[in-house]
Amino acid sequence: MKQQLLSALINDRSKHPERLNATPERVFEVLENVLGTKGQKYAQTLKGFFDGIGNRDELTGDLAEKAAAFLVKSHLSQEELSAISQQLFFSEIATDEAIDLHEQYKIPVSTLEKDLVPVWGEGCWLMDTKGKKYLDMDSNYSATNLGMANREIAVGLYNQASQLISMKEDRVQIARTRFFKTIMPMMPNGLHYFYFQNSGGEAVDKSLKIAKAYTGSRHVIAFKGSFHGRTHGAVSVTWNEKYRKPFGLDHEDWVHFAEFNNIDSVRDLIEKTGSRIIILEMIQGEEAGNRAATQEFIDALFELAGEKGVLVIADEVQTGFGRTAVKSGDWFACMGYNVIPDIMAIGKSFGGGYPVTAVVTRKEISMAMTGGYDGSTFGGNPMAMTSAFIATRQMREKDVTGNVIARSKQFIQGLENLSESFPFLTDIRIRGLMIAFSLGSEENVHAVQESLKEEGVMASLSTGEYLRLLPPTIISREETAYFLDALGKSLAKIC
Amino acid sequence: MKQQLLSALINDRSKHPERLNATPERVFEVLENVLGTKGQKYAQTLKGFFDGIGNRDELTGDLAEKAAAFLVKSHLSQEELSAISQQLFFSEIATDEAIDLHEQYKIPVSTLEKDLVPVWGEGCWLMDTKGKKYLDMDSNYSATNLGMANREIAVGLYNQASQLISMKEDRVQIARTRFFKTIMPMMPNGLHYFYFQNSGGEAVDKSLKIAKAYTGSRHVIAFKGSFHGRTHGAVSVTWNEKYRKPFGLDHEDWVHFAEFNNIDSVRDLIEKTGSRIIILEMIQGEEAGNRAATQEFIDALFELAGEKGVLVIADEVQTGFGRTAVKSGDWFACMGYNVIPDIMAIGKSFGGGYPVTAVVTRKEISMAMTGGYDGSTFGGNPMAMTSAFIATRQMREKDVTGNVIARSKQFIQGLENLSESFPFLTDIRIRGLMIAFSLGSEENVHAVQESLKEEGVMASLSTGEYLRLLPPTIISREETAYFLDALGKSLAKIC
Repeated sequence: MKQQLLSALINDRSKHPERLNATPERVFEVLENVLGTKGQKYAQTLKGFFDGIGNRDELTGDLAEKAAAFLVKSHLSQEELSAISQQLFFSEIATDEAIDLHEQYKIPVSTLEKDLVPVWGEGCWLMDTKGKKYLDMDSNYSATNLGMANREIAVGLYNQASQLISMKEDRVQIARTRFFKTIMPMMPNGLHYFYFQNSGGEAVDKSLKIAKAYTGSRHVIAFKGSFHGRTHGAVSVTWNEKYRKPFGLDHEDWVHFAEFNNIDSVRDLIEKTGSRIIILEMIQGEEAGNRAATQEFIDALFELAGEKGVLVIADEVQTGFGRTAVKSGDWFACMGYNVIPDIMAIGKSFGGGYPVTAVVTRKEISMAMTGGYDGSTFGGNPMAMTSAFIATRQMREKDVTGNVIARSKQFIQGLENLSESFPFLTDIRIRGLMIAFSLGSEENVHAVQESLKEEGVMASLSTGEYLRLLPPTIISREETAYFLDALGKSLAKIC
Repeated sequence: MKQQLLSALINDRSKHPERLNATPERVFEVLENVLGTKGQKYAQTLKGFFDGIGNRDELTGDLAEKAAAFLVKSHLSQEELSAISQQLFFSEIATDEAIDLHEQYKIPVSTLEKDLVPVWGEGCWLMDTKGKKYLDMDSNYSATNLGMANREIAVGLYNQASQLISMKEDRVQIARTRFFKTIMPMMPNGLHYFYFQNSGGEAVDKSLKIAKAYTGSRHVIAFKGSFHGRTHGAVSVTWNEKYRKPFGLDHEDWVHFAEFNNIDSVRDLIEKTGSRIIILEMIQGEEAGNRAATQEFIDALFELAGEKGVLVIADEVQTGFGRTAVKSGDWFACMGYNVIPDIMAIGKSFGGGYPVTAVVTRKEISMAMTGGYDGSTFGGNPMAMTSAFIATRQMREKDVTGNVIARSKQFIQGLENLSESFPFLTDIRIRGLMIAFSLGSEENVHAVQESLKEEGVMASLSTGEYLRLLPPTIISREETAYFLDALGKSLAKIC
């Protein structure tokens, strides 16, 4: 037991090159986490031992030895000692230090989330620095659909990093070959030509470039309510002015916003602007609290595009890889709508958590990009391809689309039941496991998010009065029931 | 020995989730690689065994068993059998299939490199599917400065992916805390505020956004000869029209190109356009065959910028992490010039091969980005931070800047010697280990690249008549000598 404690306090770098030694501050925190007020008493004694070093310095071997010896002799149970070791192992750094350094050195581009500091995950669950577990209902915006940790990807990346850690994107390599050998059954017909990128925004940005090169036209029709990412290209076709204006990207003469689900608006803009490129999300998430295109709109849009020779780019970064499946094998939203876009941007859970995204298109469009038009240092590197190879195989083997369909029904049923008891829960918008519903006000949403957290559910996203959920696509029946139960309790609290 | 062969033919997925079973085509190829014409004879027999499956199908257990039994009984030496197993283990897929699938499914944005297909690397060396070893003189555009494989990063990523594979960029997490705790000694004074991205282009794109938000001005002065990346934002400030025109990005009204190393040109453009943002690489690589800014120009530029209240963005994606060190501790090119830019974009070897990049700036500029202005799914995720934490520690421990300075001198001396024997080798341009020299013509460059490959040196980059080298920053004295020797032989051949 002492050895276990010691190895959590003093890191064995050969086994854990990613860790440091524990700090006094973290030791005190863990003692209090595990032992409550009793822990504070032990911490007091240890403070005496550690007074030669700063609270946030790394322990030395001597100090760790002294601390471990003291704790082992302190009449603590094996369970208590083991819990202390485990918490120290998961993080050797105190929660407060992690928050302070984040606030000090991280440019605060989006909302700071410091309510819990995660240290461990498995499947749909994660644990924070305090040892509390949470059911994840966000999947990191759909990036960890296959869970918060992944043993196969861990092993695959270990092997790949030991063998060949990177390679230029247009050099032939084997990890990518394995991916190509196995991915085609998941792709929409004809969309077999890949240009790999590292983020969703980059994939959108490059989709626009390919479409512009192919059509010879720079004008693009995007939609009100859209969200496509953050690079200059991706944010220019994003609706919310707040995301564009600070950067002088709110008057791009090549971008034209049409009304979503309104074919006349699209037709008018094509006529007026001569645009030959359309970009859309078939289910708008970010800005619209989940708004699915109607089947009629999609049918009319593709007919119109065909008629006018307009390219359609589907941004499937969030909707893809089974997230919005309505029938078995709907790996992308377009498959649920029975249409095939000209270009698709894909990403998020593509690599099971590793940053890999892609532009996918048809052969003749891909040929518009020729040697030297573009390039990417990391795009489709062997580690990315190993992750994508393993993650997409897991999706097929776990029958992710089947699970999404079954869980989607369970969510609909559960939410409809709750809406009967809590009439302020309205406007349930679900496509697959892209879920949103109104709670009547932003205040209600925040109150429910807080309460869910108390119930052990990781706060999910919100847009105004809508609570949005992106549960892992592998979420089980039991976990879904756990969430619905926690939601019921939370709704009851705000009544 | 049979067991070793069998495990290379039939993959044990629990140990190697990233591999498949071998194909007949690869078995035949490896027999010929290792045994020469004798191998063709053995392949003939095996073809009989395998005639029920396609040449590019995966072997079944039965067929693999038959093949292994035959080979073990075939009077091959232990060395031969071991070499066969090793080559099959490194790639279970034939070179031709890898090339065919790449050509079939990979959008050809840059120059296809299929002359060798790498399967394994260590330090500055890699090995291809044929078992031939090459000294790497390119480092994947400076992304694998620490070598083609990395055991510590492999172990760190294994642990991190097993524990927590991803996390939203503005949620506090421990892997990033470890990075923040250790990185500051490497950063230029005051440049301590990070926004993490996934590619160099993205980091440049976001640098521009931050600068625009801070200055309230969209106009940017970039330089002729520059290369900054491929997103809409990054490519717009890139000089080569070939990279912009196909995408309608050749007439961006917010971009103004000044003459490099000409302060009057910069001053004129500031006056004329009112621009309050300058972006530059202190050593231009891509387009300019390595052109270093003069100290006088940098001094004048920073003085002018200070005077006019203009922000300077240094694109240090390729020049950073010791690549261009001129004195010990020059982790970024700006440190060699004794100036501190307002914003720096960093990347490439930041994560030792893992795609992680960042925008780094001063506190008051970072504050121009507030909650909601930007966002990133993968930026600064725990895997990225684990890689950056380990890679940057390795750079310090291996004294990368010291090595760069010593090897740089060795290259200068060696190239000057060669230039005496081969007078068409002229215009040696070196800053740290960013190296270029003229061989008089593009034909000469290509001939030398081919010859180097025969000598076991991985072809490096070229720009017109310039051969460019970006050797790993950990390259040893012996490896540098090996290269200079191979270059001498290659130059002799084209005389």
